[in-house]
Amino acid sequence: MLAVFRRLLFGAPLPTSRQIHERLPKFLALPVFASDALSSVAYATEEILLALSVVGAAAWGAAQGIAAAIAALLAIVAASYRQTILAYPAGGGSYTVTKENLGVYPGLVAAASLLTDYVLTVAVSVAAGVAAITSAYPQLVHEKALLGVLFVGLVAFANLRGVRESGWLFAPPTYVFIGTLYLTIAVGLFKVITRTPLDHAIPPGHPVVASQPLSLFLVLRAFAGGCSAMTGTEAVANGIPAFRPPESRNAATTLTWMAAILGSLFLGLTFLAHVYRVMPAPHETVVSQIARGVFGRGWFYYVTQYATAAILILAANTAFQDFPRLSSILARDRFAPRQLGNLGDKLVYSNGIVVLAAAAMGLIVMFHGDTHHLIPLYAVGVFVTFTLSQTGMVVRHLRLRESGWRVHCVINGVGAFATGIVALVIAGAKFAHGAWMVVLFIPSLVFVFHKIHQHYIELGNQLRLTEADLAGPMELTSTAVVLVAGIHKGIVRALRYARTLSPDCRGLYIEIDPSETPLIRDRWEKFGLGVPLVILESPYRSLVGPVIRYLEEAKRERRDQVVTVVLPEFVPKKWWHKMLHNQSGLFLKLALLLTRDIVVTNARYYVEK
Amino acid sequence: MLAVFRRLLFGAPLPTSRQIHERLPKFLALPVFASDALSSVAYATEEILLALSVVGAAAWGAAQGIAAAIAALLAIVAASYRQTILAYPAGGGSYTVTKENLGVYPGLVAAASLLTDYVLTVAVSVAAGVAAITSAYPQLVHEKALLGVLFVGLVAFANLRGVRESGWLFAPPTYVFIGTLYLTIAVGLFKVITRTPLDHAIPPGHPVVASQPLSLFLVLRAFAGGCSAMTGTEAVANGIPAFRPPESRNAATTLTWMAAILGSLFLGLTFLAHVYRVMPAPHETVVSQIARGVFGRGWFYYVTQYATAAILILAANTAFQDFPRLSSILARDRFAPRQLGNLGDKLVYSNGIVVLAAAAMGLIVMFHGDTHHLIPLYAVGVFVTFTLSQTGMVVRHLRLRESGWRVHCVINGVGAFATGIVALVIAGAKFAHGAWMVVLFIPSLVFVFHKIHQHYIELGNQLRLTEADLAGPMELTSTAVVLVAGIHKGIVRALRYARTLSPDCRGLYIEIDPSETPLIRDRWEKFGLGVPLVILESPYRSLVGPVIRYLEEAKRERRDQVVTVVLPEFVPKKWWHKMLHNQSGLFLKLALLLTRDIVVTNARYYVEK
Repeated sequence: MLAVFRRLLFGAPLPTSRQIHERLPKFLALPVFASDALSSVAYATEEILLALSVVGAAAWGAAQGIAAAIAALLAIVAASYRQTILAYPAGGGSYTVTKENLGVYPGLVAAASLLTDYVLTVAVSVAAGVAAITSAYPQLVHEKALLGVLFVGLVAFANLRGVRESGWLFAPPTYVFIGTLYLTIAVGLFKVITRTPLDHAIPPGHPVVASQPLSLFLVLRAFAGGCSAMTGTEAVANGIPAFRPPESRNAATTLTWMAAILGSLFLGLTFLAHVYRVMPAPHETVVSQIARGVFGRGWFYYVTQYATAAILILAANTAFQDFPRLSSILARDRFAPRQLGNLGDKLVYSNGIVVLAAAAMGLIVMFHGDTHHLIPLYAVGVFVTFTLSQTGMVVRHLRLRESGWRVHCVINGVGAFATGIVALVIAGAKFAHGAWMVVLFIPSLVFVFHKIHQHYIELGNQLRLTEADLAGPMELTSTAVVLVAGIHKGIVRALRYARTLSPDCRGLYIEIDPSETPLIRDRWEKFGLGVPLVILESPYRSLVGPVIRYLEEAKRERRDQVVTVVLPEFVPKKWWHKMLHNQSGLFLKLALLLTRDIVVTNARYYVEK
Repeated sequence: MLAVFRRLLFGAPLPTSRQIHERLPKFLALPVFASDALSSVAYATEEILLALSVVGAAAWGAAQGIAAAIAALLAIVAASYRQTILAYPAGGGSYTVTKENLGVYPGLVAAASLLTDYVLTVAVSVAAGVAAITSAYPQLVHEKALLGVLFVGLVAFANLRGVRESGWLFAPPTYVFIGTLYLTIAVGLFKVITRTPLDHAIPPGHPVVASQPLSLFLVLRAFAGGCSAMTGTEAVANGIPAFRPPESRNAATTLTWMAAILGSLFLGLTFLAHVYRVMPAPHETVVSQIARGVFGRGWFYYVTQYATAAILILAANTAFQDFPRLSSILARDRFAPRQLGNLGDKLVYSNGIVVLAAAAMGLIVMFHGDTHHLIPLYAVGVFVTFTLSQTGMVVRHLRLRESGWRVHCVINGVGAFATGIVALVIAGAKFAHGAWMVVLFIPSLVFVFHKIHQHYIELGNQLRLTEADLAGPMELTSTAVVLVAGIHKGIVRALRYARTLSPDCRGLYIEIDPSETPLIRDRWEKFGLGVPLVILESPYRSLVGPVIRYLEEAKRERRDQVVTVVLPEFVPKKWWHKMLHNQSGLFLKLALLLTRDIVVTNARYYVEK
């Protein structure tokens, strides 16, 4: 029945031989691998303005400078990652690069950061997607957390059913998103240049209240918030094998496109936020305000909002591809539970999908589906990963000294240095806002990886067979004990079976009501097949206690032998009949499973009516 | 660990030999067995007035007549029950009396009615007790259902811990309750006689609105509500063996006292409700209004409310003694699940206590802890029981024709007739208000008893051993199949064990990843102890499917043999290690337990670190 339900829900299983890769041309690879990074323009400008809103109208000017700095940082990181892509044509995930060049533990730090990052990508992207929807439909604003959980469930379900990174699924929303935003920016700029009267979000006469002066700390905090624009940049490096040959070259080109589009959209939107005097509002996103300012609340505005929501949910989907893959690699390397490496019916790592969905749903519920509360947790892990993988590249260049290594070394060195500084800035500026959780969580996760690895290695050593294990006596003899609750047909069957197990076979009866014992004795005489019957008193009406005590004694008597306990059970025809029988057998079985060196055997008797 | 927790919660278990009875003198037996009946004066007058409130001031006059009729009915029932007590000195529960005299199915109807009645006694008494408390403390009025559930839990817990019907526990609240109510009635009457100005609940100038004229239907409905005063009357007849000798005579005397006290309190309170112009109010009980009218809101008023709450909760306790006892008798007669007959650690029928508590809590939550909504369900079952047991007595007199049988026959006949009419009146008048649930539920419960009985009888017939079962070949031979997931120390142990089970022993390996198979084959060659290894492909990566198919085939090949499946398991040292291993063994075990004619054996290997 469970199998039928599973089939209905997830479709027919796929044979292992179907595990193939789809090769993507660049124009399809861009939406697949860049949707995560591109989608972050939906919230990055807003995060900068949110941190600066306390300085009033001065925020808009400062935001331009911060956005420019982030765009420059993006250029550095993109240049740095091009090196990685060219050096690791088989896929340059940060875990692989760091582990290979810096050693196992830095690699695990990178892996822990990445896994944290994927969970947050799902939570933040879905929360921001929901915010795009609730900006257009404010009546839904109180259902944010619920909508978020539903979307995560939907994406997880699609992945469990085996949705692949299909270019044709990703292309339309991604290109519509890019197109609408470029059009918004172009029309907005045109209106500014032609001095068309602008539909300001905050009318120019209306004063913007400043409660604090602009300080370095506020600038750093705004910068830290804006750095969420750069999340998802590493996706192209993970996906190299999916590109058409020459894979590395095509991937590097796609990365450059992506960085150019991301940078220009981000700068454009931040500029429009300035000229349209947009400030973050509780119930409407900055992008929604800009789009409304440029086009009014017409059909084009709704297309923008839908495309934003769609690309954000696709970004979550990217994490659903990467998290299970990385955790399966960790499981293969024995740093994560083995189950994360199981291929499900649909050739996806189902357990990883479930873990990711549960963690992301938990975060969404905990933070009431609010993007602003999730963002402070977000970028730390990303920048730690950047730093480690770029440092790894530097070490690699120094080790291999391939042609042009000096230039490459400088590029990656600048990348590693810049992202390292940024990681510290983000952790410091956002520490009190939630970054402390990530700062605590990543080392804890590395510790868990370590303990898991230790367990698997120790277990392997203990279970490893050597010639010595074949020495010593090979023949065991065993004692069979049949538990007797009453004398009926099932018992005779169990006795016949028990006699095949061992020549030393006996029945064990626990006396709860002494008045029944003579009857049991009589009937055993008649139907006991000559097997001896042991009767134990139980003044406290407990079944488990006396049985365990007897078996412990039997084990002590005869060392190096096995005691097999035969539990006669009858299996009723109808499910509700089960409820009409004492479940004492079940408790006994549980207790026996906790007792060492006893083999438990169920001898079942099927009732026909 | 569970055992330690249980010990802390419920105390040390008691040996079976401690199952003795406490013998009670009459003055202690009265509180123990009459608290249920006496406590119903706390709500009976209120139910009459509630039904009549639509006729305005005419309600008070009509209530006097109805109360007098109920008092007369009480006298008839008490006289009738005296016969039962004298005829059944070993305890004249309605189930026993009805089954013995009218047959099994009428007996089951009585049992179903009684069980329903006990559940409702708990629900109604606790709800009324909570109402007494919230009358004194109106700020608690919105927590009625929660308080009710807590009280039921408390009484259930005390009973699970083995609280007995201790006279010294019951006596103080019961006698305080009787004393305060008599004092209230006496002072109230004194004020009326001396023409002291009364503190009316509704001032005489204030008109009492009538929305309907007084009709026969309203009178019958009020009568039906008032009949809740008579619930609990049968408790003395159930408890005869707990009286000091001469048991029957003492029990009969106690019953007479009880009826006299109950009748006089009921009539007195109904009269005071008239002279103090008390009408049911949403947040204060009628008894609370009367006590407040007579004494003002002083300390004596609070004593009355506490005593009322206490006796009502003791009434619930009576049901907690009777329900488990009756259901254990039904279990012994094989009409109820066997587990209801299990004596727990504390020599109480723990399962019955849990079932009763769950049902009563369910009702309290369903009806928001409101006495008025529960009462319509209440009295039907009680009067059905009265009718059946009195009819049983009539049949008994006709059969035995002991001395004076004609007079006794008339007494019981009048009782049976009167209670039968009342049962119909209550079912009719309260049908739409909830009595329909009981009218449907009692026959359904009888049907369930019937099906359970049928199952146990059929099962007994099927499992019964005869000489024929000893004919035929007594020696079985078995095939042992060891499931192999990898070649490690645990496997060698399992193989050595499997070889003791059967000379026909083989290993079974399911190939999920074909690249691992050669390694497995090599290592089996070395460590397989010469046992043959069967390798099955599994293109869909399923473990369960191929194993089951192989075993089904093996069974077909060799009929009349047993296939024993040995599952090698290793038991890790720490609980969290378990989570690090595939649970595929568990799923396989579950699937095997659903497959017929296969014996499943766990060969466990203990990991030391």
